[in-house]
Amino acid sequence: MRNLQSCATFIRSMNDSRPIGVFDSGIGGLTVVKAVRELLPNENIFYLGDTARVPYGGKSPATVERYSREMIEMLVAEDVKAIVIACNSASAVALPKIEGDLRIPIVGVIQPGAQAAIAATRNRHVGVIGTRATIKSGAYERAIHALDSDIDITARSCPLLVPLIEEGWLNDEITDRVIARYLEPLVRQGIDTLVLGCTHYPLLVDAISRFLQGKVTLVDSAKNCAKAVEQLLDGESIRNPKGSGKLQVALTDTPEGFLDVAREALQLEIGQVELREVLHGAPSL
Amino acid sequence: MRNLQSCATFIRSMNDSRPIGVFDSGIGGLTVVKAVRELLPNENIFYLGDTARVPYGGKSPATVERYSREMIEMLVAEDVKAIVIACNSASAVALPKIEGDLRIPIVGVIQPGAQAAIAATRNRHVGVIGTRATIKSGAYERAIHALDSDIDITARSCPLLVPLIEEGWLNDEITDRVIARYLEPLVRQGIDTLVLGCTHYPLLVDAISRFLQGKVTLVDSAKNCAKAVEQLLDGESIRNPKGSGKLQVALTDTPEGFLDVAREALQLEIGQVELREVLHGAPSL
Repeated sequence: MRNLQSCATFIRSMNDSRPIGVFDSGIGGLTVVKAVRELLPNENIFYLGDTARVPYGGKSPATVERYSREMIEMLVAEDVKAIVIACNSASAVALPKIEGDLRIPIVGVIQPGAQAAIAATRNRHVGVIGTRATIKSGAYERAIHALDSDIDITARSCPLLVPLIEEGWLNDEITDRVIARYLEPLVRQGIDTLVLGCTHYPLLVDAISRFLQGKVTLVDSAKNCAKAVEQLLDGESIRNPKGSGKLQVALTDTPEGFLDVAREALQLEIGQVELREVLHGAPSL
Repeated sequence: MRNLQSCATFIRSMNDSRPIGVFDSGIGGLTVVKAVRELLPNENIFYLGDTARVPYGGKSPATVERYSREMIEMLVAEDVKAIVIACNSASAVALPKIEGDLRIPIVGVIQPGAQAAIAATRNRHVGVIGTRATIKSGAYERAIHALDSDIDITARSCPLLVPLIEEGWLNDEITDRVIARYLEPLVRQGIDTLVLGCTHYPLLVDAISRFLQGKVTLVDSAKNCAKAVEQLLDGESIRNPKGSGKLQVALTDTPEGFLDVAREALQLEIGQVELREVLHGAPSL
């Protein structure tokens, strides 16, 4: 019996077509999906966006953790082989409390972003921007200082950036002014590297680059998260070596206009979007 | 027995100190509380803000209705004598479906705003601004046209205004530019009256007035809702004729910084804020 199980595990590890489960508070995590698809085109992806309760970024740690556990339960029910928390707020607040309870491998966006920031900085002064929940959690500071305690960090929450992106004002003088207001103090304090600590922010990379004029290196948490997913699949020997991966998108509430903004800006092939009800109750994780 | 009941009802109607239950998706509904306290200073108020799921404004009608039923159940459990939906999105989407199922009187913000707009307009062209959910619902158009089908209405969703208010940028050149972007087309089309169809918006009344320069009359849904509450209490003979009313505030998630913005801008005496868990499940309404 044990031999049979080992054999099944071995065969699966040779060709594991089960999907990677990606969850986000809303639709912003599709930037991570985009990066994963580019790096790992064979992989099937099941994306779950909690649009019924979006955003997580202004909510308390206890609430973000409860919501995250519910989303992960729904992904586990889809028989995913690995879980990606493509949401900085949930990665910051919930991942450290949840990862020990899970049997399948899980990765967030904070750790990969922290590693990439340390690799990028020259003057050892890193800026971090994100939602209120992410910044207040201090998760990037902890992750960066755990790797290198001598890095200076200047963090700032930028709560208007997500609504500006969802309005579709990606290249707009109002957005430029808001970015200048948020980033000018960080630049003045001498950062040479900036972590985009929210999965929406890659959609503003042009506008942010316009303001920074090449003086600051941008660290895109989506791209670095995709690299971490690749390492995780290799480490567990659960890559899908062939075929062209499919993307399935499910949301907890019907999508609004922002799905179109994301679809267009990311050039992602998103088919029929499913609607899933949140399953409340004591999580069995 | 029936006499005893009538007697109890009569005595209660002479001096009904039960609270008015006010609910909103978040903290913005405190503008309605402020208006109610000014008009009806004797009344006790129990305010419930669904900060664990805020905002409602971008969510689907089915989700807004479900959340509203859950909030109303929680207010009914507090033995409130009347319910005020101090949230335009919930008033627009959920009130018409819920009011028939309730035994206690209920009032929203749409109907009072519609009446006030009709009273205010001279050229019979009214503008309405609000969240995506409120504007998409067409609730103001329906309410205004039910009273006067000859009024022209130009509606526009302004999804950035709530985040700007929650950032505390109430008098700020960025906010002024966003307001100009949103309102300029309405002014060009000839509105002479503008309904502030979101309970957050009264906090921007100075900035909006600066842009409109007295050419357009503002209809504040908070103030008009307070008048409707007064009429409702009088109609049911359930006013509290004496004493100084108390305000109790409960939220479904711990408050963030915006509570301080609201407290300061509204000069409201908010004591200890309670935390309440949302009770899920089939609503018994």
